[in-house]
Amino acid sequence: MTRIACQQLAPRIADLDHNRAQARTAIREAVDAGAQVVVLPELVTSGYVFASKEEAAGVAVTPEHELFGEWSAEAERGGAVVVGGFCEAGPDGTLFNSAALVDRAGVVAVYRKTHLWDREKLVFSPGAQAPVVVDTAVGRIGVVVCYDMEFPEMTRGLALAGCELLAVPTNWPLVPRPDGERAPEVVVGMGTARVNRMAIACCDRAGVERGQEWNSGTSIIDADGWVVAERADAGLLLADVDLEPTRSKRLTEHADLHGDRRPELYGSIVAPRTARAADGD
Amino acid sequence: MTRIACQQLAPRIADLDHNRAQARTAIREAVDAGAQVVVLPELVTSGYVFASKEEAAGVAVTPEHELFGEWSAEAERGGAVVVGGFCEAGPDGTLFNSAALVDRAGVVAVYRKTHLWDREKLVFSPGAQAPVVVDTAVGRIGVVVCYDMEFPEMTRGLALAGCELLAVPTNWPLVPRPDGERAPEVVVGMGTARVNRMAIACCDRAGVERGQEWNSGTSIIDADGWVVAERADAGLLLADVDLEPTRSKRLTEHADLHGDRRPELYGSIVAPRTARAADGD
Repeated sequence: MTRIACQQLAPRIADLDHNRAQARTAIREAVDAGAQVVVLPELVTSGYVFASKEEAAGVAVTPEHELFGEWSAEAERGGAVVVGGFCEAGPDGTLFNSAALVDRAGVVAVYRKTHLWDREKLVFSPGAQAPVVVDTAVGRIGVVVCYDMEFPEMTRGLALAGCELLAVPTNWPLVPRPDGERAPEVVVGMGTARVNRMAIACCDRAGVERGQEWNSGTSIIDADGWVVAERADAGLLLADVDLEPTRSKRLTEHADLHGDRRPELYGSIVAPRTARAADGD
Repeated sequence: MTRIACQQLAPRIADLDHNRAQARTAIREAVDAGAQVVVLPELVTSGYVFASKEEAAGVAVTPEHELFGEWSAEAERGGAVVVGGFCEAGPDGTLFNSAALVDRAGVVAVYRKTHLWDREKLVFSPGAQAPVVVDTAVGRIGVVVCYDMEFPEMTRGLALAGCELLAVPTNWPLVPRPDGERAPEVVVGMGTARVNRMAIACCDRAGVERGQEWNSGTSIIDADGWVVAERADAGLLLADVDLEPTRSKRLTEHADLHGDRRPELYGSIVAPRTARAADGD
């Protein structure tokens, strides 16, 4: 079993010092609780609802920033891996909505969100590289950010590349949902986990930022697609998840979730055939 | 609004006459209730748990079989479209797990299941053609069968091809699920509907066949991914679903579920990068 933690934090908009201290404390708490993987929200260093690109630029950091040394130091105490979102300063004044995977060696991988949600497009540049799967000491971990998870081509690609646990730093703006239902993105995560036999840890954020509320739908989902832990308020969510089932996609003697794919057909689904003419309409 | 019906029937194994009469009655009942689309289970003409390929061959029919004339006659009474599964006799003794889309003009399209589940591979040949989207008098309808829906490449392809309503004849064998959860395939359907902004009607079966129980998870899901009607026992399920939202994938001023895709990246997700070497393990 792998102990996975999500820290549903409430970053403070454009307050790097506050957010840096908050994240370090959160990682420490999770590692102290035995977490081997710690997932933090999207843009945990910066907050989300920027008034302008300039405001975001004021708290943007590079992967060389010393705050990641703090993440690494906390990770090292427990042999853990940390995944969290940050506002990245790129070349020539570009900004990226990025996530870093950090272990005791430091920043192992940076992923720049490739599917920007709505007004993020006014602040950030989209990433130009596909996400990677990192073979860490605690398992093969893929990283995407928020809206990326809603693109099944991307999550499928990660599963085919060997991802055992998909870590998803996220900020899910509050959307309506029927009584008794989970946040819709969690439902998407459950289905994604099941069809790919891949565990998923979605770390959402808490708090209200410039009037924006959040689904606060932090959830840890196992390889069968079931939510094994979830919380709606701020704080630490922990679950022990077995990643072993993710390593084979065989379900029965004759069924294999990846082996049964028909990639030769997927490109040949074409635009509608009309039945109306034959139908006399 | 489009009135959609699913008839969660219990076919009798290898009893074509019984199943034929049962399906006709079920279509009539749905059309009488105002259904514009009627979905029947997978293999509704034949049952599912065949003792042998020979037994299946004994109840296999071609799309020219007069039973489809009955489906068409019932459909015509209400200007409806019927989608249902059947055991198809193909050339040279082959059998297919197929679904027909039928309107008042007769059989408009036949789809042969391309992802065969488990022991179906011992009886049926897999279809060699991708599913089609048919532009019917009541909307653009795509058809897949059961396990097909668990391949996100296929459902995405159908949505990109303009599918507004995905009709899914299914026989979901009973699988364990946590208390309070829906059948896992329904969760997959909800996520699939939401990320594609496409309505989905899954018609499962009822009854116990040769000891096999079923999830009996018949569900009608709207374009936001919410289950608008579901039933666990045998019988008619009806829902009025607005297909208009399926015709645009734009969610906000800057977000579009299809326009935001990054197809140039999806093929470049590669096998794991190792962090272990750098990590000293």
